[in-house]
Amino acid sequence: MFNAEMKSETFKNLIHIIATVVDEVKMSIHPDSLTMKAIDPSHVAMIDMVVDKDAFISYEADDTEIGLDLDKIKSVLKLAGPGDTIRMSHNPEQGMLTVTIGNIERRMGLVDTGSLSDPKVPKVDLAVSAKVPLDQLQKGIRAAESISDVDHIKLEVNSEGFELSCAGDTDLASLRVPASELEISADAPAHSMYPLDYFSNIVKVIPSESVEVQLDTDYPVKLLFDIAEGHAHITYLLAPRIENE
Amino acid sequence: MFNAEMKSETFKNLIHIIATVVDEVKMSIHPDSLTMKAIDPSHVAMIDMVVDKDAFISYEADDTEIGLDLDKIKSVLKLAGPGDTIRMSHNPEQGMLTVTIGNIERRMGLVDTGSLSDPKVPKVDLAVSAKVPLDQLQKGIRAAESISDVDHIKLEVNSEGFELSCAGDTDLASLRVPASELEISADAPAHSMYPLDYFSNIVKVIPSESVEVQLDTDYPVKLLFDIAEGHAHITYLLAPRIENE
Amino acid sequence: MFNAEMKSETFKNLIHIIATVVDEVKMSIHPDSLTMKAIDPSHVAMIDMVVDKDAFISYEADDTEIGLDLDKIKSVLKLAGPGDTIRMSHNPEQGMLTVTIGNIERRMGLVDTGSLSDPKVPKVDLAVSAKVPLDQLQKGIRAAESISDVDHIKLEVNSEGFELSCAGDTDLASLRVPASELEISADAPAHSMYPLDYFSNIVKVIPSESVEVQLDTDYPVKLLFDIAEGHAHITYLLAPRIENE
Repeated sequence: MFNAEMKSETFKNLIHIIATVVDEVKMSIHPDSLTMKAIDPSHVAMIDMVVDKDAFISYEADDTEIGLDLDKIKSVLKLAGPGDTIRMSHNPEQGMLTVTIGNIERRMGLVDTGSLSDPKVPKVDLAVSAKVPLDQLQKGIRAAESISDVDHIKLEVNSEGFELSCAGDTDLASLRVPASELEISADAPAHSMYPLDYFSNIVKVIPSESVEVQLDTDYPVKLLFDIAEGHAHITYLLAPRIENE
Repeated sequence: MFNAEMKSETFKNLIHIIATVVDEVKMSIHPDSLTMKAIDPSHVAMIDMVVDKDAFISYEADDTEIGLDLDKIKSVLKLAGPGDTIRMSHNPEQGMLTVTIGNIERRMGLVDTGSLSDPKVPKVDLAVSAKVPLDQLQKGIRAAESISDVDHIKLEVNSEGFELSCAGDTDLASLRVPASELEISADAPAHSMYPLDYFSNIVKVIPSESVEVQLDTDYPVKLLFDIAEGHAHITYLLAPRIENE
Repeated sequence: MFNAEMKSETFKNLIHIIATVVDEVKMSIHPDSLTMKAIDPSHVAMIDMVVDKDAFISYEADDTEIGLDLDKIKSVLKLAGPGDTIRMSHNPEQGMLTVTIGNIERRMGLVDTGSLSDPKVPKVDLAVSAKVPLDQLQKGIRAAESISDVDHIKLEVNSEGFELSCAGDTDLASLRVPASELEISADAPAHSMYPLDYFSNIVKVIPSESVEVQLDTDYPVKLLFDIAEGHAHITYLLAPRIENE
């Protein structure tokens, strides 16, 4: 059993985030929270999402799992306007999720959860951390994307601040945020290279004002942010490109 | 002779409605009104449009007929902004329609009316009728279009209200408007299936706030609405899909 | 040496104007001004642009030349928002232009100026001149573009005013601006035909409110306008189509 109501914006945000790495996802439903974990087919990016029941307007659930086709749920969510409430209701016997938006009722077939992986998200402790305003990350990405032959960016945190930079054959781009504009914690400087396309895809759909960026030399980068007034917690992990000297 | 002025929005609305079924249309001009009738090439949808002279800012006409290429007139109407007046002038000797918008003069070649059909719009009396707000119809269509394998919708009127619904292989959508929000007249419940694409095309261009939907089991649906402050009357007829048991 | 700051809108305007005729341009930098000259590959259109140092927020320069790839600079300029300042810095030893926008630094490889032509812009004295509001020219072009088989327009200035007109196989369009709404100087009426696509491309990117149109029968048309509060002067020359009788 699963009956819940959520602001349409919040649910759209959750779905657009998870859809940056997978087409289908297993939603693991518990009495007090709902979780979604996903790893992309190339095993480069991973998402761990925990949504507390307080992120919902109303929430009633037994332990259950449902498999969502993300393109299908996105097309359903387009039916909701900005202030609308999404009501979701799952009855295991029907094998369907009923989504109600105002006087529209939309019943969706589900994906067999047996076919969906349940990735283990590794615990990684990373040396440095900086809370970076989202608009700065977005600017940095657009600067990197303005160079046609760039496919990796370098992220760096040191005592001076945060830097996102990249180099093509003839062109360079860099965005620097000074330490004074960041909440920063760094034992030592750290930097690594990451794929631009993955990084861009996730940053485009982050709805919060800032992101905690944790990194370490030749380690994955971890992006941490909350949505739904702090009731939904998202961890995004992206593998580095190891530079061979 | 035909000299008339009309608000550009009104004329755009008339043209976009008729263009949902045909590419070329015969405009039958009379001293007190102008009519356009059209049937689509598959004989599935039909429009009957009567525009009183009071729908115009000024109107002077003898009995005459002119053949319009609708793509051409649409491209001319794009030259008019929201508050503009369209002036039309037809001189039979030139075989051209002169359209004036501000200080732009645009003379258009006409289509030979001999090649244009003059469909007879059948009189059909339908059992039930409901005046449905247009935004509800639009929502229902968008819900239907969110299912990839749907090409027909079911319209139903009964004592509880109006319902637009459809079913794909795995998914369902329905929009219900309760009788309390409708002007409804129904002897008995009635429902039929209609092609989604035709229904969607006409509903997208209806500029009025509500539409009178008349239907009957396994009969065409009739959509009735007025524009130009009640001075232009449109009847749209759409053939049902007969379900074989 | 070249260090300069400019409002992003002004620099975008200059680049979009020059990009209507070429993909790469030589920027000739002098202590008191900067010039760009360009001729399109078919030798139909030519631009001469003189930007005084007062068009800049700050300007420091020796005599030098740099070659710009216009698609590249356009993609860099997209990083600037409406109120942003563009800082440009050129160090001849690096062979790069460094563009700074807020905390983004973007270094661009340059085009070898040896490969770029330096067209001589001919002095032409034209018989008639009219200062035409830009929105009228834009309307006239849209009217011409609403006829599918038109590729030339006729520009005419006479004592009654300015006219932009064209004729396709079955359709005609014309825009007339009466002399009373123009600053006009005409010894005798003059008119010529010009290619619609070139004329449309330049008019679309002119950011000033009016344009001085100079013309003469079977001569090029000259469009003259200023931007940057009168500190940047642009001359655009477009060759006529000579009508053979």
